[in-house]
Amino acid sequence: MSDFESELISVAASVDAVLDNILPQPVGPEASLLDAMRYACLGGGKRIRPFLVVQSGRIFGMDEETMLRIAAAVECIHTYSLVHDDLPCMDDDDMRHGKPSTHLEYDEATAVLVGDALLTFAFEILSDVNAHPDPFVRCDLVARLATSIGFHGMVGGQMIDMLAEAGELEITAINRMQRMKTGALIAFAAESGAVAARASHSAIHALNGYAHDLGLAFQITDDILDIEGDAERLGKSVGKDEKAGKATFVSILGLERARAQAGLLAAQAVAHLDLFDEKADLLRALATFAVEREH
Amino acid sequence: MSDFESELISVAASVDAVLDNILPQPVGPEASLLDAMRYACLGGGKRIRPFLVVQSGRIFGMDEETMLRIAAAVECIHTYSLVHDDLPCMDDDDMRHGKPSTHLEYDEATAVLVGDALLTFAFEILSDVNAHPDPFVRCDLVARLATSIGFHGMVGGQMIDMLAEAGELEITAINRMQRMKTGALIAFAAESGAVAARASHSAIHALNGYAHDLGLAFQITDDILDIEGDAERLGKSVGKDEKAGKATFVSILGLERARAQAGLLAAQAVAHLDLFDEKADLLRALATFAVEREH
Repeated sequence: MSDFESELISVAASVDAVLDNILPQPVGPEASLLDAMRYACLGGGKRIRPFLVVQSGRIFGMDEETMLRIAAAVECIHTYSLVHDDLPCMDDDDMRHGKPSTHLEYDEATAVLVGDALLTFAFEILSDVNAHPDPFVRCDLVARLATSIGFHGMVGGQMIDMLAEAGELEITAINRMQRMKTGALIAFAAESGAVAARASHSAIHALNGYAHDLGLAFQITDDILDIEGDAERLGKSVGKDEKAGKATFVSILGLERARAQAGLLAAQAVAHLDLFDEKADLLRALATFAVEREH
Repeated sequence: MSDFESELISVAASVDAVLDNILPQPVGPEASLLDAMRYACLGGGKRIRPFLVVQSGRIFGMDEETMLRIAAAVECIHTYSLVHDDLPCMDDDDMRHGKPSTHLEYDEATAVLVGDALLTFAFEILSDVNAHPDPFVRCDLVARLATSIGFHGMVGGQMIDMLAEAGELEITAINRMQRMKTGALIAFAAESGAVAARASHSAIHALNGYAHDLGLAFQITDDILDIEGDAERLGKSVGKDEKAGKATFVSILGLERARAQAGLLAAQAVAHLDLFDEKADLLRALATFAVEREH
């Protein structure tokens, strides 16, 4: 196993342990909500965003406990977005991380509330003193997270994606949609170490550029795997976009050009990291992983 | 018109103006989301929570612009909770503030995203320097809001309420559910002036006690109006709880005892304000309004 792979697994285990520790225990009359929050959050996913948070922190010598708290908040946001996106009125997905979606394992009302609770919990985590001793930094993290996942970020991107079901988006529109829908949260994760360390604007800017290229490379590869991938290894349904007649990078560019574009973006992502030393090597390795993975 | 009534109308107009100003304009490919956010937020509701925020600030001589920003954040949260609660998989309500619910005026997917976007926007507002110049206070507001609307607050209460549809809750369980579902956000609103002013713990504690009694008095009166009220004046459907066989204060206590209980709670709420001077008089008037209103 490469250093990158073992580190990815190690960060996933660490953030899972933090989530398991800070998510509420399912007791009391609202136990079914708390149980469903744990179901949605724990034991699944590659934890790419937590990995970004932790590696970003390492560049600036940040304390790992602090970064894992921030990583847990980011993962709560990512999970909330998946739970809401999987709802019947949204993408109507039955499988997630190899198990039934939250609204199937529980019910739709519970899934709506799980998303709401996880979204809220992320801000509770970031505003807590354990996330960072300096209230200015905590507040900056809250502000940046809120902007990245709001109407001009993740939620706005999901709205555009819903409209794209009609298959009318062009490549620039899909690019913009993905920058909002997935890029903005990935950028928050990648910048978080620099923000926590109160690093220079140029360091934040470089990590932002890296994240947006990385995010698109990931997305294009997801679109390719949706055509070519294996449902069992992916832990989710495949061929859905094609069936829905949805505009994707692959439907517009074709497989070959999509693959070339993903490779180009991965190289571009790495180039953004030129101002950092070898402490950024695992972020460089992540860019390669983004386009070479099979699940 | 009493001082109280004209002040309630004046605060509602002020917070509407702030919301109209800070909510994004509906342009770009995500315009339908932004349009639906404005539809849900603007032009409806008594704005009780903004009134609490502004009056709480006045006790401590806080700047009104600051308090109106906090009030706008609270109203975004309240609106998000209504939009999600009205969804078909939740309470399935067709009318809100005298117009079609957001999921009927737009669609279910848009309503889910409107709720998500407004929830997120509230944290964007509170973490912005315009909400308060001191990052410690901004962070404290974010932390308190997140706790009050999370799994052990508003969202947890909504989960318990969904389970109460079966009509199995007893009076202590309904009390607890309402403390979480509506009381916690009302408490945040009532405490916010003291938090913004970094006032004493006893001041915050008094406002918290006031808010929880006030919230229950409001809720019991809502339950009474659901039986006796006029749909047109209320701007929402009536008789729904009874039809759904849902346990409410009225179904358990009966109309007469419910009315007596609401009066008792209003008096208790006022008693909590004893440590404040006449600057708290409009909060005292609100407690009377809570139980004497007809809509």
